[in-house]
Amino acid sequence: MGVGHVRYPTAGSSHHAEAQPFYVNSPYGIVFAHNGNLINTSELLHFMDATAHRHINTSSDSELLLNIFADNLQKTGKFRINEEDIFTAIGGLMEQCKGAYACVAMLAGFGIIAFRDPNGIRPLGLASRKVGAGTDYLFSSESVVADASGFVDWEDVNPGEAVIITRAGVSRRQVGKAAAFAPDIFEYVYFARPDSVLDGISVYRSRMAMGDALAAEVQRVLKEKNLSVDVVIPVPDTSRVAALNLAQKLKLPYREGFVKNRYVGRTFIMPGQQMRRKNVRRKLNAMALEFSGKDVLIVDDSIVRGTTSKEIIQMAKDVGAKSVIVASCAPPIRYSNVYGIDMPSRMELVAHGRTTEDIAAEIGADLVIFQTLPDLVQSVRQFNTRIEQFDCSVFTGEYVTGGVDQAYLQGLEDLRADNVKDVLVGGLGTLEGKDGGGINRETKSINGHAEVKVKEKVTQSDPTHGGDTIGLHNGWGLS
Amino acid sequence: MGVGHVRYPTAGSSHHAEAQPFYVNSPYGIVFAHNGNLINTSELLHFMDATAHRHINTSSDSELLLNIFADNLQKTGKFRINEEDIFTAIGGLMEQCKGAYACVAMLAGFGIIAFRDPNGIRPLGLASRKVGAGTDYLFSSESVVADASGFVDWEDVNPGEAVIITRAGVSRRQVGKAAAFAPDIFEYVYFARPDSVLDGISVYRSRMAMGDALAAEVQRVLKEKNLSVDVVIPVPDTSRVAALNLAQKLKLPYREGFVKNRYVGRTFIMPGQQMRRKNVRRKLNAMALEFSGKDVLIVDDSIVRGTTSKEIIQMAKDVGAKSVIVASCAPPIRYSNVYGIDMPSRMELVAHGRTTEDIAAEIGADLVIFQTLPDLVQSVRQFNTRIEQFDCSVFTGEYVTGGVDQAYLQGLEDLRADNVKDVLVGGLGTLEGKDGGGINRETKSINGHAEVKVKEKVTQSDPTHGGDTIGLHNGWGLS
Amino acid sequence: MGVGHVRYPTAGSSHHAEAQPFYVNSPYGIVFAHNGNLINTSELLHFMDATAHRHINTSSDSELLLNIFADNLQKTGKFRINEEDIFTAIGGLMEQCKGAYACVAMLAGFGIIAFRDPNGIRPLGLASRKVGAGTDYLFSSESVVADASGFVDWEDVNPGEAVIITRAGVSRRQVGKAAAFAPDIFEYVYFARPDSVLDGISVYRSRMAMGDALAAEVQRVLKEKNLSVDVVIPVPDTSRVAALNLAQKLKLPYREGFVKNRYVGRTFIMPGQQMRRKNVRRKLNAMALEFSGKDVLIVDDSIVRGTTSKEIIQMAKDVGAKSVIVASCAPPIRYSNVYGIDMPSRMELVAHGRTTEDIAAEIGADLVIFQTLPDLVQSVRQFNTRIEQFDCSVFTGEYVTGGVDQAYLQGLEDLRADNVKDVLVGGLGTLEGKDGGGINRETKSINGHAEVKVKEKVTQSDPTHGGDTIGLHNGWGLS
Amino acid sequence: MGVGHVRYPTAGSSHHAEAQPFYVNSPYGIVFAHNGNLINTSELLHFMDATAHRHINTSSDSELLLNIFADNLQKTGKFRINEEDIFTAIGGLMEQCKGAYACVAMLAGFGIIAFRDPNGIRPLGLASRKVGAGTDYLFSSESVVADASGFVDWEDVNPGEAVIITRAGVSRRQVGKAAAFAPDIFEYVYFARPDSVLDGISVYRSRMAMGDALAAEVQRVLKEKNLSVDVVIPVPDTSRVAALNLAQKLKLPYREGFVKNRYVGRTFIMPGQQMRRKNVRRKLNAMALEFSGKDVLIVDDSIVRGTTSKEIIQMAKDVGAKSVIVASCAPPIRYSNVYGIDMPSRMELVAHGRTTEDIAAEIGADLVIFQTLPDLVQSVRQFNTRIEQFDCSVFTGEYVTGGVDQAYLQGLEDLRADNVKDVLVGGLGTLEGKDGGGINRETKSINGHAEVKVKEKVTQSDPTHGGDTIGLHNGWGLS
Repeated sequence: MGVGHVRYPTAGSSHHAEAQPFYVNSPYGIVFAHNGNLINTSELLHFMDATAHRHINTSSDSELLLNIFADNLQKTGKFRINEEDIFTAIGGLMEQCKGAYACVAMLAGFGIIAFRDPNGIRPLGLASRKVGAGTDYLFSSESVVADASGFVDWEDVNPGEAVIITRAGVSRRQVGKAAAFAPDIFEYVYFARPDSVLDGISVYRSRMAMGDALAAEVQRVLKEKNLSVDVVIPVPDTSRVAALNLAQKLKLPYREGFVKNRYVGRTFIMPGQQMRRKNVRRKLNAMALEFSGKDVLIVDDSIVRGTTSKEIIQMAKDVGAKSVIVASCAPPIRYSNVYGIDMPSRMELVAHGRTTEDIAAEIGADLVIFQTLPDLVQSVRQFNTRIEQFDCSVFTGEYVTGGVDQAYLQGLEDLRADNVKDVLVGGLGTLEGKDGGGINRETKSINGHAEVKVKEKVTQSDPTHGGDTIGLHNGWGLS
Repeated sequence: MGVGHVRYPTAGSSHHAEAQPFYVNSPYGIVFAHNGNLINTSELLHFMDATAHRHINTSSDSELLLNIFADNLQKTGKFRINEEDIFTAIGGLMEQCKGAYACVAMLAGFGIIAFRDPNGIRPLGLASRKVGAGTDYLFSSESVVADASGFVDWEDVNPGEAVIITRAGVSRRQVGKAAAFAPDIFEYVYFARPDSVLDGISVYRSRMAMGDALAAEVQRVLKEKNLSVDVVIPVPDTSRVAALNLAQKLKLPYREGFVKNRYVGRTFIMPGQQMRRKNVRRKLNAMALEFSGKDVLIVDDSIVRGTTSKEIIQMAKDVGAKSVIVASCAPPIRYSNVYGIDMPSRMELVAHGRTTEDIAAEIGADLVIFQTLPDLVQSVRQFNTRIEQFDCSVFTGEYVTGGVDQAYLQGLEDLRADNVKDVLVGGLGTLEGKDGGGINRETKSINGHAEVKVKEKVTQSDPTHGGDTIGLHNGWGLS
Repeated sequence: MGVGHVRYPTAGSSHHAEAQPFYVNSPYGIVFAHNGNLINTSELLHFMDATAHRHINTSSDSELLLNIFADNLQKTGKFRINEEDIFTAIGGLMEQCKGAYACVAMLAGFGIIAFRDPNGIRPLGLASRKVGAGTDYLFSSESVVADASGFVDWEDVNPGEAVIITRAGVSRRQVGKAAAFAPDIFEYVYFARPDSVLDGISVYRSRMAMGDALAAEVQRVLKEKNLSVDVVIPVPDTSRVAALNLAQKLKLPYREGFVKNRYVGRTFIMPGQQMRRKNVRRKLNAMALEFSGKDVLIVDDSIVRGTTSKEIIQMAKDVGAKSVIVASCAPPIRYSNVYGIDMPSRMELVAHGRTTEDIAAEIGADLVIFQTLPDLVQSVRQFNTRIEQFDCSVFTGEYVTGGVDQAYLQGLEDLRADNVKDVLVGGLGTLEGKDGGGINRETKSINGHAEVKVKEKVTQSDPTHGGDTIGLHNGWGLS
Repeated sequence: MGVGHVRYPTAGSSHHAEAQPFYVNSPYGIVFAHNGNLINTSELLHFMDATAHRHINTSSDSELLLNIFADNLQKTGKFRINEEDIFTAIGGLMEQCKGAYACVAMLAGFGIIAFRDPNGIRPLGLASRKVGAGTDYLFSSESVVADASGFVDWEDVNPGEAVIITRAGVSRRQVGKAAAFAPDIFEYVYFARPDSVLDGISVYRSRMAMGDALAAEVQRVLKEKNLSVDVVIPVPDTSRVAALNLAQKLKLPYREGFVKNRYVGRTFIMPGQQMRRKNVRRKLNAMALEFSGKDVLIVDDSIVRGTTSKEIIQMAKDVGAKSVIVASCAPPIRYSNVYGIDMPSRMELVAHGRTTEDIAAEIGADLVIFQTLPDLVQSVRQFNTRIEQFDCSVFTGEYVTGGVDQAYLQGLEDLRADNVKDVLVGGLGTLEGKDGGGINRETKSINGHAEVKVKEKVTQSDPTHGGDTIGLHNGWGLS
């Protein structure tokens, strides 16, 4: 048995200590990996210090979550714990932790354990394969991992559910209190691989449906504005599926107008905005033939910071496009993602505080057409109507877990501003709508980091006798 | 504040997980380094499993000792522990652990802690230096570390004593039960740097005294055998001090007959006996001028495996020595070191089960003259008569801690035999009397390793439901 | 000024000595890079040995070509050579060397020199950009390199032409004897980037035309066989352009039925056929929705070894395809490429010695439809009718340079068989129609290698006095 | 057959291109390594450019020397050269090159060639060993290399001699014009290993003799000054041999008062003077017992920059020495070494422009006693009176080759000043009398470097048409 975790390669060794999985040896020996983000980190760190007496060495809330789990297990005080104890411990964790978390843990000599937050914000499932007389099991965020390794019978882990796999078999238990099931809709828009099926919904089908729905909206707007379009061109790779359906629905020619250079983009990780601009031109090349003298409709999955869109539109115009309309499969992104997708802060979002017209002006498009939120939700939900809602917070600012107020967001943004150099230089690859997809499931516990800093200052301003002021959060490695 | 640990570079990455210091985050966050070896590892591992529920991930007894310490701290259950709690915890550890241990730990946000086993087998001391208005403190095994960094006022940590250094100051407490103070005499013979002062005794002076005492013994034997010697030649580097005194006492010429190649020996770490032989010739070269046609007395610090001595004697004869007598500053080494000096097993010791005459025959010397044990003890003890005894177990087979019986030694040797490839290839640099000195203070918990193996087999032969048979010792990384 | 060369990363360090560019310091200091392959290597190596007295250290014919160039320059015997001398030297080289070569060289303190073989088999061009008051120049195989770096005014180097760029300006000269201009048509089919324009022909447009032409052939065959198709699915990435045109021409739905995993394929370089099969499944995933219950037309650029096609067809059937027809933009590949595209030997080509029906059976397709050669040529040539012919040797076995006979090919294949382990394990990434594109322009001088081997044997069997049998080809690094 | 070269590890990759051996492929393929330094580099570089048309890519005069050799070989113009040609070529080289050079070359498919400059300034010899029915041969600078690998029958290569070894046997020929045989005396003082025999003289014996001669001088000076000494202490490691003889001759106690830390010095390479001072204390530790309250005579091999001596004297006084007299086995070093020993420039030499009294004051000694030059020469020469003179230029400023005038030395020092950062930071380990010994036989062609720079400026200020101003010396890699 084993636990792994994928994330973008980050050059700096300073992040080495935050590499997943994490390990604690007490109790029992636990290895732990996590996808998501907690929003009550501050409160949990205080609990670690005051009650659990566990040192949190990094700013990763994955380490924090592991220690909450370990603390709950330790309370059993048992020589040999059993599955009942583990379910109870995870139930305790779910009462303490707010936010999004899909987790997998390995308990030495016992087995593999997985669980998912009560809102089921981040995806998680399991699959199996027969090997000789036995059965292998696999947990992963996306079903494609199972496909690629020959595992079958994919089943989603339910929100608030825990699953334990030992030599004796698989045990599943609903351990979290009932809560609204609300998967993050952004997985379907951009993040997940198209060949994955998450919570019973094919990402591919949902993107086709987004294209169909967006086609209707495009038709409506074009009619309203009395405009026409000669050709539909996707921004590779994510938006191809939607763009193709959109083109077929509108009976417009679909052309591969942008050529991708597969050899750039992973080698060059460039700091700062200036460099990022150039980077787009290294990654994509516009085929003049498809743009020259035409009214072009470029289809993208979403518009985040707007810098990539701006560059792409400029490229289209440079090779002779008469006009460029951009259609986005997602509505305007105006709010932060606090559940683990690494997105820029509100101030950096091109749609934050801007109307659709302002956005078009900002990115240099002749027109921008956004999918409506009801259309987006309908595109996804139609394939599994048992899911009654999705987390759409990046579009609405309404966070399904509660607990995300102005003070929280402001703190998060202040911190981002402090760390801006780090984020840009370290190449953590914040989302700009073109890249990756489904891979960077590692998240930075931004607020955890903030708390650590505050805590340190308190400790350092009060240098009384060590014996009475033990400050558990002092990172000794990095500070 | 920080904790470091030196050991020979070992190429294999398989030992990476055993690199010191070790860390546990619960309770409080502890970083820990250790010099020495425990002899009741088996019992302690069982305690870890059955009572403390702490997973021991490696075969290093340093990790075990850290967890014994952590478990004792955790029993306090306090939000903020104080020095009293720490002294109590170390006192508990000293009751549980048998063997040799000089330890230094760092408690997050609290301070640095050091302690030494009740017999004081391994050395440990502290020193300080003024920096601006404040004071820096340093713990180390040998005083030269303090000298090199400008720390002064070296004081030994007493056997059974614990020392805590926080921002508020230094607290010292006798926490272990009264026991015989018995430092390992081998530190003086070979292991420590000559410029160190350990437990009030200058290593340099003790080696000079060894030379003086050995001179008397050499004189006695030569007279008895009616032999004479033309020149005294040390085996560089350790034996120079004693050899020089010996030569002056016997009014014999002292010559640097062996030239050392400083550029070999660190680059070439060679597996197996065959390679080791050649290695000596790469490291040392005999000056024919000093050997040719002469009766030579070669002075060495000790004779361990005998292979180096054999090679050196052959080199002397190859360049024309008429006869070669070897004088050893230490008595015959016939027993294992179980307190942390990495020495071969009894069977590999050339003196094990051999008379002095047999040893001479085995290594090709015309005669071997050993220091007597009373002379050796007197050479060291005269500089600090408050030390009433030394651990001389490698000469006598009497182990000061008790608890080392035939079964224990046999188990240890069986294990060594199993691991022989690892030991030789991995280049752990087992002691052969010529090298290093004072640096390789890392020790391998041989018996701990053995227990792990046994435990695994038990667990694996009983694959009942995971929940009931959690086997904490299962290493998942290496097995 | 500088010279660079791209090639697939190859793990083995044994190929380090063959990394381009090559350098000789006599005469004048020359740095040299080359794309292509020579076919009279054997004869040229003999000339190096017997006449030029230059040691060829590797089996790369790029090193050989550099030394032919150096030898021609050296013949001038001048203190300061001028452009006239250089043009003369390249003219001499073109008389000596047979095969394909697009070359760029840097002469210390002089400038950059580029030239192209008289048949213009491999592409080469130059571009410029204004920088301040001056002008930068760039040579590259494909025009996209210029685009990506902001160079404009792309001009092809003519077959048999040499270009010299110094501080004083650009000089161009036709130095090779008149010969048939015959660019390798395979650049358009698969190798070049779609956004490149080679010899006045847009790769993108040529692929669109291939799709149109193939549509007609598909229609003809389907009608003849009385078959129909539900959907057109490209094998990403190269065949998208042609497949899209084909679908539109046949008024069939075009769907992105295969999803590519961009994170695999560059990390896993797997030896041997068995591993390669698995590799395809790691790189591509079939969307059941698009295959299930359908008669599918899969469009690929070409079929080389057939293993990838076989696997793709199997994947389609595994997810429910009723029938699978494969349409190839290129005719059957039945012969080796001897001009620098790294392709398997004839025996490994699935079309070698097989009819279209046999090929379909071999790869598991219900039907295979190949582009006809006239259609392929017409698809490309229509955009620049001044090019009267193309090298189509992989389809016809007719080699435009002459000099490629059965003996040559047999020798080449014997060598390949010898080196088969090397080729597979070393991961030189021989072409299988799915990968790369436009990057691996490094070629292995297979026949050069062979000659070296033979030569060595001769030398070694005749160990007369060194002075009379100096064997220049003895590689001392590798043999 | 193979060629290797040892030098201090230097961190900076900028020196990678200068790593020996060097290689040229024309003519014949030659690999070449060199110990020494040329003094007419400027003139030779001009010849390379104007006549030989060979590009010199680095500032190493080893590369230059190789190309002079290659050019002479090329003049033969032969298909198969023989030994006669090679001897002729080396003879030509010896007429062109001024300075010190011990060289070994490998000619592809032919054999190994070695030769030594007509003054025999740098050492070179050969040895052999029987292997089966055949014989292995080895060339090296020092005889210990042969000893360590089991080669015997060491013979020196004579000044001006060339030796060729092929499969057919060994050919020796005097090819250089008769000149004064004048080995560098500094090899005996410090540079060579004590167990080497160079030009028939045991380095060990010569150092013993230096101790004896220095004893007489010390006795004379002490008597003159009416001073006495309690103990003789060597600075390890080089001076032990001489110090021991000196002590025995003066009937003074000899003590190992300095302890060396073998684990420092190779890991820490520290830039700048400030750091170098601290470095000495990390490497050596003074035993208070041997210094406290005593009049101490410290014996060192030589005093170069004086910084190490100063630090050592301070260490002695810090541990209580009543007075410190320093005796140097070599006379005052007042001039640069231009023959390949990497020594600081005149201005950095503590003895340059200082009297003995000034030197003592500068380094903080109570008295400094230098060996006289006649005594030094006699100490060495007595063992091989066929050597009529030695190069003693660092003591006298008289350079045996001629051609070293004020302008040359000034140019060399200007360059050193320019490069000072490089020299200090790059850790090229300029000689300070304590380190290494016999290993760093790589030399930097300082004057070659200077010429390159001048040349570049000329070329760059005259940007006429490339064809007429080809400047062969332009390094393109580094400039």
